[in-house]
Amino acid sequence: MEKVNVGVLGATGMVGQNYIRLLAGHPWFRVTLVAASPASAGKKYAEAVAGRWLMEEDIPAEVRDLVVTDASDVARARGKCAFVFSAVALDKAATRAVEEEYAAAEIPVVSNNSAHRGTADVPVLIPEINPQHLEILEAQKRRLGTKKGIIVVKPNCSVQSYMAPIHALRKAGAAVSEAIVTTMQGVSGAGYPGNASMDLIDNILPLIKGEEEKSELEPQKIFGTVSGNAIAADTSINISAHCNRVPVVDGHTACVSLKFAGKAPSLDEIKRIWETFRAEPQELGLPFAPERPIIVREEIDRPQPRRDRNADKGMAVSVGRLRPCNVFDIRFVGLSHNTVRGAAGGGILNAEILKAKGYL
Amino acid sequence: MEKVNVGVLGATGMVGQNYIRLLAGHPWFRVTLVAASPASAGKKYAEAVAGRWLMEEDIPAEVRDLVVTDASDVARARGKCAFVFSAVALDKAATRAVEEEYAAAEIPVVSNNSAHRGTADVPVLIPEINPQHLEILEAQKRRLGTKKGIIVVKPNCSVQSYMAPIHALRKAGAAVSEAIVTTMQGVSGAGYPGNASMDLIDNILPLIKGEEEKSELEPQKIFGTVSGNAIAADTSINISAHCNRVPVVDGHTACVSLKFAGKAPSLDEIKRIWETFRAEPQELGLPFAPERPIIVREEIDRPQPRRDRNADKGMAVSVGRLRPCNVFDIRFVGLSHNTVRGAAGGGILNAEILKAKGYL
Amino acid sequence: MEKVNVGVLGATGMVGQNYIRLLAGHPWFRVTLVAASPASAGKKYAEAVAGRWLMEEDIPAEVRDLVVTDASDVARARGKCAFVFSAVALDKAATRAVEEEYAAAEIPVVSNNSAHRGTADVPVLIPEINPQHLEILEAQKRRLGTKKGIIVVKPNCSVQSYMAPIHALRKAGAAVSEAIVTTMQGVSGAGYPGNASMDLIDNILPLIKGEEEKSELEPQKIFGTVSGNAIAADTSINISAHCNRVPVVDGHTACVSLKFAGKAPSLDEIKRIWETFRAEPQELGLPFAPERPIIVREEIDRPQPRRDRNADKGMAVSVGRLRPCNVFDIRFVGLSHNTVRGAAGGGILNAEILKAKGYL
Amino acid sequence: MEKVNVGVLGATGMVGQNYIRLLAGHPWFRVTLVAASPASAGKKYAEAVAGRWLMEEDIPAEVRDLVVTDASDVARARGKCAFVFSAVALDKAATRAVEEEYAAAEIPVVSNNSAHRGTADVPVLIPEINPQHLEILEAQKRRLGTKKGIIVVKPNCSVQSYMAPIHALRKAGAAVSEAIVTTMQGVSGAGYPGNASMDLIDNILPLIKGEEEKSELEPQKIFGTVSGNAIAADTSINISAHCNRVPVVDGHTACVSLKFAGKAPSLDEIKRIWETFRAEPQELGLPFAPERPIIVREEIDRPQPRRDRNADKGMAVSVGRLRPCNVFDIRFVGLSHNTVRGAAGGGILNAEILKAKGYL
Repeated sequence: MEKVNVGVLGATGMVGQNYIRLLAGHPWFRVTLVAASPASAGKKYAEAVAGRWLMEEDIPAEVRDLVVTDASDVARARGKCAFVFSAVALDKAATRAVEEEYAAAEIPVVSNNSAHRGTADVPVLIPEINPQHLEILEAQKRRLGTKKGIIVVKPNCSVQSYMAPIHALRKAGAAVSEAIVTTMQGVSGAGYPGNASMDLIDNILPLIKGEEEKSELEPQKIFGTVSGNAIAADTSINISAHCNRVPVVDGHTACVSLKFAGKAPSLDEIKRIWETFRAEPQELGLPFAPERPIIVREEIDRPQPRRDRNADKGMAVSVGRLRPCNVFDIRFVGLSHNTVRGAAGGGILNAEILKAKGYL
Repeated sequence: MEKVNVGVLGATGMVGQNYIRLLAGHPWFRVTLVAASPASAGKKYAEAVAGRWLMEEDIPAEVRDLVVTDASDVARARGKCAFVFSAVALDKAATRAVEEEYAAAEIPVVSNNSAHRGTADVPVLIPEINPQHLEILEAQKRRLGTKKGIIVVKPNCSVQSYMAPIHALRKAGAAVSEAIVTTMQGVSGAGYPGNASMDLIDNILPLIKGEEEKSELEPQKIFGTVSGNAIAADTSINISAHCNRVPVVDGHTACVSLKFAGKAPSLDEIKRIWETFRAEPQELGLPFAPERPIIVREEIDRPQPRRDRNADKGMAVSVGRLRPCNVFDIRFVGLSHNTVRGAAGGGILNAEILKAKGYL
Repeated sequence: MEKVNVGVLGATGMVGQNYIRLLAGHPWFRVTLVAASPASAGKKYAEAVAGRWLMEEDIPAEVRDLVVTDASDVARARGKCAFVFSAVALDKAATRAVEEEYAAAEIPVVSNNSAHRGTADVPVLIPEINPQHLEILEAQKRRLGTKKGIIVVKPNCSVQSYMAPIHALRKAGAAVSEAIVTTMQGVSGAGYPGNASMDLIDNILPLIKGEEEKSELEPQKIFGTVSGNAIAADTSINISAHCNRVPVVDGHTACVSLKFAGKAPSLDEIKRIWETFRAEPQELGLPFAPERPIIVREEIDRPQPRRDRNADKGMAVSVGRLRPCNVFDIRFVGLSHNTVRGAAGGGILNAEILKAKGYL
Repeated sequence: MEKVNVGVLGATGMVGQNYIRLLAGHPWFRVTLVAASPASAGKKYAEAVAGRWLMEEDIPAEVRDLVVTDASDVARARGKCAFVFSAVALDKAATRAVEEEYAAAEIPVVSNNSAHRGTADVPVLIPEINPQHLEILEAQKRRLGTKKGIIVVKPNCSVQSYMAPIHALRKAGAAVSEAIVTTMQGVSGAGYPGNASMDLIDNILPLIKGEEEKSELEPQKIFGTVSGNAIAADTSINISAHCNRVPVVDGHTACVSLKFAGKAPSLDEIKRIWETFRAEPQELGLPFAPERPIIVREEIDRPQPRRDRNADKGMAVSVGRLRPCNVFDIRFVGLSHNTVRGAAGGGILNAEILKAKGYL
């Protein structure tokens, strides 16, 4: 199979750098376009990120000399790539506009931004959970007046640590009705420079602006159903989130308490459900799909961010400490890598399933 | 008023060192006995802790040259002190035994240990919440066959960040029925050496052994009622706790979600209840009593451990982020200093109220 | 004695906040002017710093309602204060200009900025080391055409951990000729937000821009001699500095290796020199003067930043690990509090000696 | 080529676990013996390390079920492996004894321990620097009365960050005569549990017991010459070391100041020397040999531990900030991975060169 040319919008920022890093050597995709702000446009990529390349690996050789284009100049992208990953750092309205311009130019957009998560016909995609939402894309294309120009977004990084475990239970027939979640999130989730070091040495921050709202609302859309031209939220599940920033580089940990609408499965049954959970990305053998989407740790003190975030290349969710709850039914701890599964890696998996299903 | 002579059992450990530090210059108490393990007995205190003095302040001059006695040698304590603070580091059964021996020798015991927290006639005391539990001491003395020998304990450090806020609401008539709590606890709570640095750099530990059970059970006893020879637990409140160890030196943060049995007070009313909450320690003007037991922070991102743990000499609980909960009724963040209010400082306040009420 | 009215330029920044915090309750000085950028001018101080007050203590009551003035509006300061502390955050040329304007308006300037450290007739003052440099102020006033308008600056925070120990040796007759120093500096030295948390979790930064040059050059001026209208650098001492940023909030640690021009004193003699070192601030009994400018720690693993930075209210330098060096003559570790002795506290001590000597 | 069977002594400790982790999939070696203390003997490896497996990767499948033997039972090792890696955790005398017993049993020992570093006929091997020291092994075998039983050790982890850069300069003709080094060492260097978290949050420790002596003495032996039955130290180079423990998981950073006996090479020349430095491991194409033993970072603020420790699988030394020194001749910062190049990875490279040269 010949590799597909792809572009990265916002290629010089931290999420963009993660795309560049993770796409190096990708079996299906090859980066041919790097777009960023006008300040970077015209420079070679290596020059544009000089002094602010944040990855541990060096800049991939094949991207170093690509000339950065202006992300708002959609015409420059035409012909250069089959689709784009969007990690532009604009305000919400501008993000929505530029992503629609790319779609209008028949360049599909696989986005990390929150701007379109509330748009009724834009799927908020976790390939293991709601690939059936992609059928809304026909309606979306009608609205946009495009043939293949589409917009697909991924959810906020904070939800990745508890969505797959909850979904696996729902799929197995256990209706989760209420969830109280407290997250302890790594600082890379705030981008760079993000939080000041003075705020996170011998300290934690009990607030991440806007994060709790996203952590509560997005799951209802992801669990929702396509209905005409919109995805209708599933309000049978009610989530409350406390979101904290902690002195951890990568990895979002979630302490989760769940209540079921009916009878709760036994702890053994839940473990079995999680361990055997597989979904479309696994069946399709997508390159970035983790072998096991949910890894159950048996040690009494796992998962831990530094020790578990890289599980299955950073794409699996690790769970542990499953135990009964004396207020709700069960409790557990979930963990995922926020800049891999929760950001660029999740975006790449979205592109892979779109490609496998013929949307790209 | 002449100062009362006091002893510290387990004086060389970290909690003991905190007692020594905090009692320096105390207006009512003077340390005249320092007792520890046989290995330390016979040495001057400064020698006994050489190379393992962990406080930022230097060893108080008046304690440096006290000769350490063997904590198990109760006879040596007689006449040397009017009561003892117990921070012995023995197993549960041995702790229970040694504390009862001191009481039997008519030396009251103000304890930090968990050993007697389950004993039916031993009050688990937070002076702002359940000073009325001290009436059980008559029954306890009958059981022990003592005239003034008593045992009073303090609760686990993890509960201090949410007990006062919940109690203030209950006292004002708002019946909290369910609480789901996630704690992020500082490493000093594990004593020294406690957790390995490898476990807490770029990492958090999602387990503190035995901590969740204490965090759930002790509140029911503290909120309980004296009934004959026992304190009967209040099971109308049901608590679920996730306890985590985080890279913070001092300070336990709690993310708390509360449900009320009846109608929930408004957020404004709750703030007013907390801000105006005062109790017996404040009325009695006890030296270690915080002026305001609960400090409401109005900033959107407080309380934070490093910035709020020392509020009112480390004896106040700071709360913030009060907001509605879409699963329960309300949510907030509570914070207290685990080695001051949650350990030695709390023990000293217990001794002060016992003294003020004539028990010492 | 009636309190002297003082102003703080750059009062809303981190150094300025430290001045506000440390001047609360000062026996000689009272803050009557808070000046900052035009953006803050006109607001009450508490409003101006709302959401960015970084101190652990709350804003002092007597400053909360002071109306912030524009620091560049020198006329507004006249009559409001007898002198100003300068912590303005402008570029070097602008800082030099505004400080000279205050001096020209006969308002003495006690500055934390580096801008005037290279000006020939401006003393870089450490009161225990070079109070005799104040005699240059006559020449400075002649240049500025002022009667009492003067500018006095303090050195860079990085030098505070090794200057007093080296000076005490020189004063005792041991001529230090070469020093190789490696510093490990706390993040508060970079101001707020300063370094990104991503850069200082599980990491250190081996560069602080411009810091090594200051750490090498400023000591030569501080040890210099007044000669006509200039302070002539003492080039008989040669210093090389490696400056690193480490994950510590406050406290600059320095690993120091020293070579003497002649015979090296014995280690015992050096300890005695350090322990008995006293200077003019101690003799004058200045309020912020540490009782012992140099505290010798005998423990094998001290000084440590968290445990020693607050020694004598953060104004003393702690030294330890004195031992022979197999390349130079001796080695030791020095430590001081960068935002107290190394910034606002050092500035206040400068003002105190100026006041005591009749310059303010 | 058929794989060689190898044993790991001290296989359950942290260095041992690193051997197990790094040897998984090694092209030449296969672990067939895991030996530890009597407490672990008889258990399967996975059981023996249950609850204390510290690596991020899971236990390699091929080692999980190996039955742990008692490391002091040399007879049990015979026939099971061609040589052993020694990471036993005994006192110095016992370590020397057990390593000699293995050698006496004709099982070569590739050791991480410091016990034999001072033994005159035991090479302290860094394969890029002193492979010629292996010729001493003939004398060593004569002393031990063995045919192939030998002991080869690796140096202390702290020296790895500056030895290769200094050696490359010496090899190119620039005689380094004096070095003053300050290290900032990651906590994994202390093993597990190692340093308490209370000591390394918002703090650094300015002492690592015994580390400075090793950092100063071992280089003189490594740079020494084989002379009869002993390796004679090279005392023409004189090193002084300050060793600090910092809040970093992995990676030892060294701030190095160098003086040359003769004329110093230019900075450009030094860079060229470092960048082009290759040695026997590279020429032999050893599996664990880094392609470039010294990687020169051009960024102004590198190397940094988290970003550079994994360079070339953790086997390369990264250097940066090369600049003139106003006391000595030059200064730079060196960095290497202490548990890979500085421990198990370095031991494996030692075994590889021994194998390639026919000693195993």
